[in-house]
Amino acid sequence: MSRIFNFSAGPAVLPVEVLEEAQCDLVDYRGSGMSIMEMSHRGGVYDAVHQEARANLRELLNLPDDFEVLLLQGGASMQFATIPMNYLGHGQTADYVNSGAWGAAAIKQARLVGNVNVCADCEKDIPARVPLQSELKQTPGAAYFHYTTNETISGAQWKTVPKTDAPLVADMSSDILSRPMDLAPFSLAYAGAQKNLGPSGVTVVLVRKSFAERASKAVPAIFRHPTHIEAQSLYNTPPCFGVYMLMLVTRWVKRVGLERLFRQNADKAALLYQAVDASGFYRGTAAEACRSDMNVTFRLPTAELESEFCSAAKKAGLDGLKGYRTMGGIRASIYNAFPVEGVRALVHFMGEFERTHG
Amino acid sequence: MSRIFNFSAGPAVLPVEVLEEAQCDLVDYRGSGMSIMEMSHRGGVYDAVHQEARANLRELLNLPDDFEVLLLQGGASMQFATIPMNYLGHGQTADYVNSGAWGAAAIKQARLVGNVNVCADCEKDIPARVPLQSELKQTPGAAYFHYTTNETISGAQWKTVPKTDAPLVADMSSDILSRPMDLAPFSLAYAGAQKNLGPSGVTVVLVRKSFAERASKAVPAIFRHPTHIEAQSLYNTPPCFGVYMLMLVTRWVKRVGLERLFRQNADKAALLYQAVDASGFYRGTAAEACRSDMNVTFRLPTAELESEFCSAAKKAGLDGLKGYRTMGGIRASIYNAFPVEGVRALVHFMGEFERTHG
Repeated sequence: MSRIFNFSAGPAVLPVEVLEEAQCDLVDYRGSGMSIMEMSHRGGVYDAVHQEARANLRELLNLPDDFEVLLLQGGASMQFATIPMNYLGHGQTADYVNSGAWGAAAIKQARLVGNVNVCADCEKDIPARVPLQSELKQTPGAAYFHYTTNETISGAQWKTVPKTDAPLVADMSSDILSRPMDLAPFSLAYAGAQKNLGPSGVTVVLVRKSFAERASKAVPAIFRHPTHIEAQSLYNTPPCFGVYMLMLVTRWVKRVGLERLFRQNADKAALLYQAVDASGFYRGTAAEACRSDMNVTFRLPTAELESEFCSAAKKAGLDGLKGYRTMGGIRASIYNAFPVEGVRALVHFMGEFERTHG
Repeated sequence: MSRIFNFSAGPAVLPVEVLEEAQCDLVDYRGSGMSIMEMSHRGGVYDAVHQEARANLRELLNLPDDFEVLLLQGGASMQFATIPMNYLGHGQTADYVNSGAWGAAAIKQARLVGNVNVCADCEKDIPARVPLQSELKQTPGAAYFHYTTNETISGAQWKTVPKTDAPLVADMSSDILSRPMDLAPFSLAYAGAQKNLGPSGVTVVLVRKSFAERASKAVPAIFRHPTHIEAQSLYNTPPCFGVYMLMLVTRWVKRVGLERLFRQNADKAALLYQAVDASGFYRGTAAEACRSDMNVTFRLPTAELESEFCSAAKKAGLDGLKGYRTMGGIRASIYNAFPVEGVRALVHFMGEFERTHG
C-alpha cells in the first residue's frame, strides 16, 4: 500500500492508524459477529460507540456543563437553515458576519427564514481577511450573532473570538479541534465532520440547553435541536458508521493531545507560509493577521502555471492542491491528520517548481 | 471470524462479500493512495462511485426517464418534513394513509407544515393491516397521496399500489429493491438506505422532475428537491462512504438479480409464516393478506416468554429478534442480504423453544 499526501479540503486525510483499525474491525466488530454498520442503533454495542463519541468531544472541548453534544446529519449546510428556523423568530434580527464564501452561504439561507443584518462584509476583500471587532455593526437585542471561524476557501481565520452581547453562534467546520478551545463564550457551535473529525455525513452541533430552549416549536421535529437533545441524538437512525469513525478520530486526538496537535498545526502552517513569503514567485492570498492554520492559500503568477503546478504536484504524490472552483489558485489543506512530512514534501516541490518555472 | 444471524430491523445485515470488498479497499481505495472517505467529493474517483450508485438504482428500478435519483442525508424522517415543505402549499390538502407507526410519524410532521387528510386509519388495528382501496377517503385535487409501502414495526405490507388521481408518494424504506418494482404510478418514492440498500446515513429519493417543479421556492435550498436534482446530489458534501456502500450493495443486487432476490425473499418469509401457522404457540400479528416479506412479526403466549425467547435465541447466534420497543413481541427482519440458512436456523430454534416452553 502506498499512501499519497492528500491536501484535500474535505473530505480530507484521516489518521492512518484510525483507518487501519476500522479496516480490521469492518466485517466483525470486536467479536460481535456483525459489522458496526449492521447493528441496531438501539443496541448496547453501538450505543457504547455513540456515547463515547459524544463524551470524547465533551472532554476534548472542555465543554461547560450546560452544553449538549449532538451528532446529526446534513452537514453544516443544513445548519445554515435549521439554526435560523430554531432561533430566529418573527420580528427578530440575527447578526451575521460575511467573511467569505461560507459566511455568505449561511447568510443566504438565513434570509429565507428571517431578518438578517450583515454586521460586517469582507467577503470580496483582497487579501482575504476577517473583520476587526471595531468594524462589527451589531444589532442591539439580536437573536444571535453568527460567524465562521475559518473560511476554508479563502484561507482567512479568526484569531480571536468576536465580542457580542448576543448569543454567539459559530460555524467551526474547518478548524474545530485544531487547538485547545474555550467554548464558554458560545451558545452554539457546529461543524461538518469531514475536516478534523471524521468522514462526511456526520455533523456535530454543540449547543447550550438554555439556548436550545428558545427553539421554535412550529418547526418539524427533526430540525429542532431540543428533539435531538432529548433523544441523545437517537431520535432517528444516526449515521452509525460515521459516528464510529468520529469516535475513533476523537480517541486518536486524545492519544496525541490537543496541545501537541496545535503546535504541530502551527508548525506545519508556518513552514508553508515561510516558503510562500521567501519567494517572489508565490503570493499568499490571505492577510497576514488572518492566515489560516488549516487552509494555506496562495497564487502563482498565472492561472496556467497554477494548473501546471497542480498536475506536476499530483504526479509527485501531492494531491488535492487545486483551489476552490470559484477561487482558483492553490490551497493546501493541512488538518490535524495531515503529516508534517507532507508539508515538507510540498515545500520542497514548491522550490523545485519555482526553479524550473520562475 | 464468526458471523451471527442478524435479524435487526435496520441498520441491518449487509452482504458479506460487500463488507469484505469494502474492508479490502478501506485504507487505499483501488490504488488511489487514499481511503474513499478521504477524497474530495468533487474529484473523479469519488464521482465515478457516486454516478454508479445512481445509475445502478435507475437500472434496477427500471426508472421512467422523467425520474431523478437523489442521494441525500437525514433519513426517511427528514423526508417526512421536507416532502410537505416542498409540495404541500397554503390552501392545499395532502392525503396520508395511517397504516402504522411510520405512516403516523409522517402524518405528525406533515401537520406541522400544512393541511393533512388522513384518508384511512388502521394504525391500531389488530391484526396489523393496511387499508383496502375501498376504504380510502381521498380528497379531490389533493396535493399528493402519501403511504408507507411496508410498516417495518407491525409487519404489514401493501401487496398492491393504491389507486389515486393525486401524485403518488411513498415511503419505501423497508421494502425498496426487495422485488422488481414498477415506479410508473409514482411521483416520488423515498427510502432510508439502512435496510436493503446500505448503511444508515444515506437516503434515496426518487422523484419525477415534472413533480419537483412544483416545489416551493420559499424553502431553504438544502431542503428543496430541485436543488439536489440540479446538483446531481452534490449540492453539499454527500455522505461519501455511505454512497460507496450503496454502490457496492446495488452492484451485488445486479449480480444476484432482482427476480431471484424476490423469490428468495418470498421463500424466506413463507418458511417463517409456515412455522408460525403450524404452531399453537406462536401467533402472527399481521393480517394474512398483508404479511410483510421483510419483517415477520409474531407473539408468544406471554411477554416473559418473549423475553426468554430473545435471550435464548441470542445465545444461539440469532440476534435482533426483539420487537420494536412500543410493540413488544418478536420481529424477524429478513431483508435481501439475510441468508435463508438464518431463517432455517430460526425455524429450528422456534421448534425447540416451543417443545421446551410450550
